[in-house]
Amino acid sequence: MAERTIALVGGGLIGSSWAVVFARAGHTVRVYEAVPEQRTALQDRVRRLLLDLEAEGLVENAAAAAERVVLTESLKDAVQGAGHVQENGPERLEVKQPLLSEIDAAAPAEATIASSTSALLPSALSDHLTGRRRFLVAHPVNPPHLIPLVELCPAPWTDAAAVERVRALMAEVGQSPILVRREIDGFILNRLQGALLHEAFRLVEQGYARVEDVDAAVADGLGLRWSFMGPFETIDLNAPQGLADYGRRYGGMYAGMFGVEPWSGELLAKAEEQRRAMLPREALVERQSWRDRRLLRLVQHKKAMDKSDKEK
Amino acid sequence: MAERTIALVGGGLIGSSWAVVFARAGHTVRVYEAVPEQRTALQDRVRRLLLDLEAEGLVENAAAAAERVVLTESLKDAVQGAGHVQENGPERLEVKQPLLSEIDAAAPAEATIASSTSALLPSALSDHLTGRRRFLVAHPVNPPHLIPLVELCPAPWTDAAAVERVRALMAEVGQSPILVRREIDGFILNRLQGALLHEAFRLVEQGYARVEDVDAAVADGLGLRWSFMGPFETIDLNAPQGLADYGRRYGGMYAGMFGVEPWSGELLAKAEEQRRAMLPREALVERQSWRDRRLLRLVQHKKAMDKSDKEK
Repeated sequence: MAERTIALVGGGLIGSSWAVVFARAGHTVRVYEAVPEQRTALQDRVRRLLLDLEAEGLVENAAAAAERVVLTESLKDAVQGAGHVQENGPERLEVKQPLLSEIDAAAPAEATIASSTSALLPSALSDHLTGRRRFLVAHPVNPPHLIPLVELCPAPWTDAAAVERVRALMAEVGQSPILVRREIDGFILNRLQGALLHEAFRLVEQGYARVEDVDAAVADGLGLRWSFMGPFETIDLNAPQGLADYGRRYGGMYAGMFGVEPWSGELLAKAEEQRRAMLPREALVERQSWRDRRLLRLVQHKKAMDKSDKEK
Repeated sequence: MAERTIALVGGGLIGSSWAVVFARAGHTVRVYEAVPEQRTALQDRVRRLLLDLEAEGLVENAAAAAERVVLTESLKDAVQGAGHVQENGPERLEVKQPLLSEIDAAAPAEATIASSTSALLPSALSDHLTGRRRFLVAHPVNPPHLIPLVELCPAPWTDAAAVERVRALMAEVGQSPILVRREIDGFILNRLQGALLHEAFRLVEQGYARVEDVDAAVADGLGLRWSFMGPFETIDLNAPQGLADYGRRYGGMYAGMFGVEPWSGELLAKAEEQRRAMLPREALVERQSWRDRRLLRLVQHKKAMDKSDKEK
């Protein structure tokens, strides 16, 4: 993909981290930040983050990348000539709506526009925009220069082509874009986090576990596999015949815990079909060896980190 | 702690992995496995797992460790002289109950007895035992030689001293023991996994996301921090004043997603107090830097792993 100019509107913590993401991939980044103190802080932060990455071999030339990040005097100046505009303003509808109107009016007709919001729905953010068909949510995880996931959530009226262009851009700069197919509160990531947090708080509230025991259950247990494969791949590799087999074996146990219905045969078949499109059944055994190799190396990595923590 | 003899009753997949855990820590491991084919497989598997660990620098002398694992001809022979007996039989109450009776009758009076069960409750497993006060569940995550978490769940009648001795043993061999303070279906780990899986299946069922998008949300998003710190520490570091501050800021958002009540002030204060006992508030900022350093190194580790996967 050709080098493209990316405009960032809002240069706080998330904006700085986005600047690093796009600049390290070779793009020119034009940032508009209204608050004077934030403007000064931004360039220092971008430079420091890039140097940290360079020190670990994750960026080749931090100074050159930092040069590609340009602060502008106005929003208009930032977005002109941009191929993509990423909005990182305060998380309030009444602030974001007029900000997006301003962006929509000033950005080139062919530019895509995305909001970094974690909680506001794309339909509420863009209903009023003339160019609402080129708008979507692109929700990063903080900080995006370290955590690659980006949730793309279109409004009902967003052009499929705009979604595809933002998806391709995010993949090209090394992020991991996923698609939220219909808008929903919390998108995907915060719903998964919320479901786990609610159970975690319940266990503490009712005295089954203390906070540190719940944390260890994840950090020394569940979280190891989850750091390189998701919950579906995890269960897919934990029953001889894969995901649906796991669901049939253990669905009753999980349903019993929460007093809900077990996963239906239809649902298990749907999930199994999607999983098999990623990994054919005959590759399950080889993938289990891959998982064990990754686990072994992750354990080694964690031991080295713990050792280095202790030496500090 | 002095070297101790550990008896394993059941030498299948979990039993082999337990043998590696105890043998690499210097203990003699006496294994009784009733099925002849399993007996042959066990010693090969133990040797192979230890060699894999040695190759990564995680065990010093694989051959010496393998020598410490001894197959016995009878259950009685395995448990005599043992300081701890770990039962790894089939996951059926009607199989485990008589097996545990046999262990209880044959094991030295001072030995602790634990079951590896993932789903049966300690009260149901041990109500009938003469020595039920020395019995508890010690539920590993598969495979325990790579995943350190062990859930200790006592029955209402288990001696606190027995729990403490098993906790100390697990910590001494390098596992990460947590305490389930009252018995509950699924203990802690599977309840957390179940809560996340239920939401994951719901999102797929209702068409909000595909299986691979949910998996990426965890493997490229949530799972990174969760592989070295738990969900409570994660939120503790995601608001200026810590956990309760996070709960007050975002509790309404999470509650709204699921149509439940937000976490109460009392619950947030309880969790905050437990968290502050682990990390004082004035250390939050330094811990955030630690998190970012760990994230950076984890990202570097994952990139190296992905590269090595591609080269295969």
